[in-house]
Amino acid sequence: MDFLAELKARAALVDRALDEFLPPEDAYPPVIHRAMRYSLFAGGKRLRPVLVLAAAETVGGDPVKVLPAACALELIHTYSLIHDDLPAMDNDDFRRGKPTCHRVFGEAIAILAGDALLTHAFALLARNAREQLAPVERVIQVIGEVAVAAGTPGLIGGQVVDTLATDDTVDAATLEYIHRHKTGALYRVSVRAGAILAGAGEKQLEALTAYAENLGLAFQIQDDILDVEGDPARLGKPVGSDKRNKKATYPALFGLDMARARAKEAVEEALAALELFDERAGFLRELARFVATRDF
Amino acid sequence: MDFLAELKARAALVDRALDEFLPPEDAYPPVIHRAMRYSLFAGGKRLRPVLVLAAAETVGGDPVKVLPAACALELIHTYSLIHDDLPAMDNDDFRRGKPTCHRVFGEAIAILAGDALLTHAFALLARNAREQLAPVERVIQVIGEVAVAAGTPGLIGGQVVDTLATDDTVDAATLEYIHRHKTGALYRVSVRAGAILAGAGEKQLEALTAYAENLGLAFQIQDDILDVEGDPARLGKPVGSDKRNKKATYPALFGLDMARARAKEAVEEALAALELFDERAGFLRELARFVATRDF
Repeated sequence: MDFLAELKARAALVDRALDEFLPPEDAYPPVIHRAMRYSLFAGGKRLRPVLVLAAAETVGGDPVKVLPAACALELIHTYSLIHDDLPAMDNDDFRRGKPTCHRVFGEAIAILAGDALLTHAFALLARNAREQLAPVERVIQVIGEVAVAAGTPGLIGGQVVDTLATDDTVDAATLEYIHRHKTGALYRVSVRAGAILAGAGEKQLEALTAYAENLGLAFQIQDDILDVEGDPARLGKPVGSDKRNKKATYPALFGLDMARARAKEAVEEALAALELFDERAGFLRELARFVATRDF
Repeated sequence: MDFLAELKARAALVDRALDEFLPPEDAYPPVIHRAMRYSLFAGGKRLRPVLVLAAAETVGGDPVKVLPAACALELIHTYSLIHDDLPAMDNDDFRRGKPTCHRVFGEAIAILAGDALLTHAFALLARNAREQLAPVERVIQVIGEVAVAAGTPGLIGGQVVDTLATDDTVDAATLEYIHRHKTGALYRVSVRAGAILAGAGEKQLEALTAYAENLGLAFQIQDDILDVEGDPARLGKPVGSDKRNKKATYPALFGLDMARARAKEAVEEALAALELFDERAGFLRELARFVATRDF
């Protein structure tokens, strides 16, 4: 399997679905729909929606049927980036080389565009049931889990602790809390959503959850490592920003070697969790190997 | 029926449920849960949740069973107020006589508290199914409708147009758009949510929707009127702010007499829509009479 080509093909599938599922740019009032689409189509690996598709595939489901849920997870991720970039939060002017939403549309519209993406995510999740893509009991379970993962027990909790953290207060436990919540919770629920919608059994769901938790950790550590030793041209963004911002990271707390070892271990644990699946877990396996070796 | 005592009793029921359904104030990280509760319990008539309960009652349902949905609507209303008050939006320092969320907790936490309330609303809506309070098909329909009403086709759309409107651009059609979306959409979906969860038939749902649309209009016009001629002591807030902020209002566009007549007409239409119901619609009838005569 040419993994990167596969990843790209799936991301393209997600992009087409996002375009279909979002209100058109000229729907009244157009500025908010332009802002939503601007941030949503500003680039990004589409890892969360791709995880939804791959988890469904792994348990024998049809990835196309979980596209609304996959897109919902990407909307939630994008909303969190827009709000995270706001002057009152990280005050970032650029993301992925492009001006951030509030730099282009102003703060008020950026706040509302984030709100709108989050809200639309739940409209999309409900669509799984309306279009009878999955049994309604599964859809409801996924909506409940996504709301928890995106809320204060998950994404927002991590964001709050990250916002309040200064370099004196961040120890290993706090760093782990931030990562497990700010990024880990959405990876975890992406995998679970795809699996639940496709009818995963209890044991399968447990294994996939362990996979996702380890994948999220490996991804985050590699992100931290790339900010130290990555190639800005390849990454499409400057490196060293964590150090300048005195951000707590794995390399800063444990050193580069320990961070690399921890990422490798997480990948191995992710792969071990997939042992009960057949070749339909092939993409998830490749993805786990990819996250800790990637240079972008 | 002593309507105000009834209204108070129902609001108290909602308050107890809100307290039960929200994460405790000391749940980690506590600051976000304190901020959510601060704004949620800063006062307010609880009209939206009370509408959910009363609509369920009107079609013969048990109001207690729709409490999670009722609370969800109040969370969405509160989130919209927190974000609306932000410096980048209306920049309000006080609401209902108390410092606004961002004045107490800072802008970053206020943004996140709004996000968290919106997210938790969908967790609560899903709870209706988890606790088997209503058939799962009805719950999913309500989640879909709430997401649309709170999104750019509803609440956020109204907010966007209101944010962009200056006094030169607001004509009667724009004013109506703002009101129907910024406030009307949540009233409408509150009534529909309660009715759908309680198993309303097609005709009942149609009638209740017409009721809600007219109620929302009457409520909004009366709000505008009270800002002109209300008693600040009774209202608990200063009057004349619409004029100072050059806000488009019914009295400003049509004059006080026309505004009063339009509100009265809307109340009559709301009452007419309830004709097919028996005495279980008593509370909704009293509520319609109340909104256009209230002095607070």
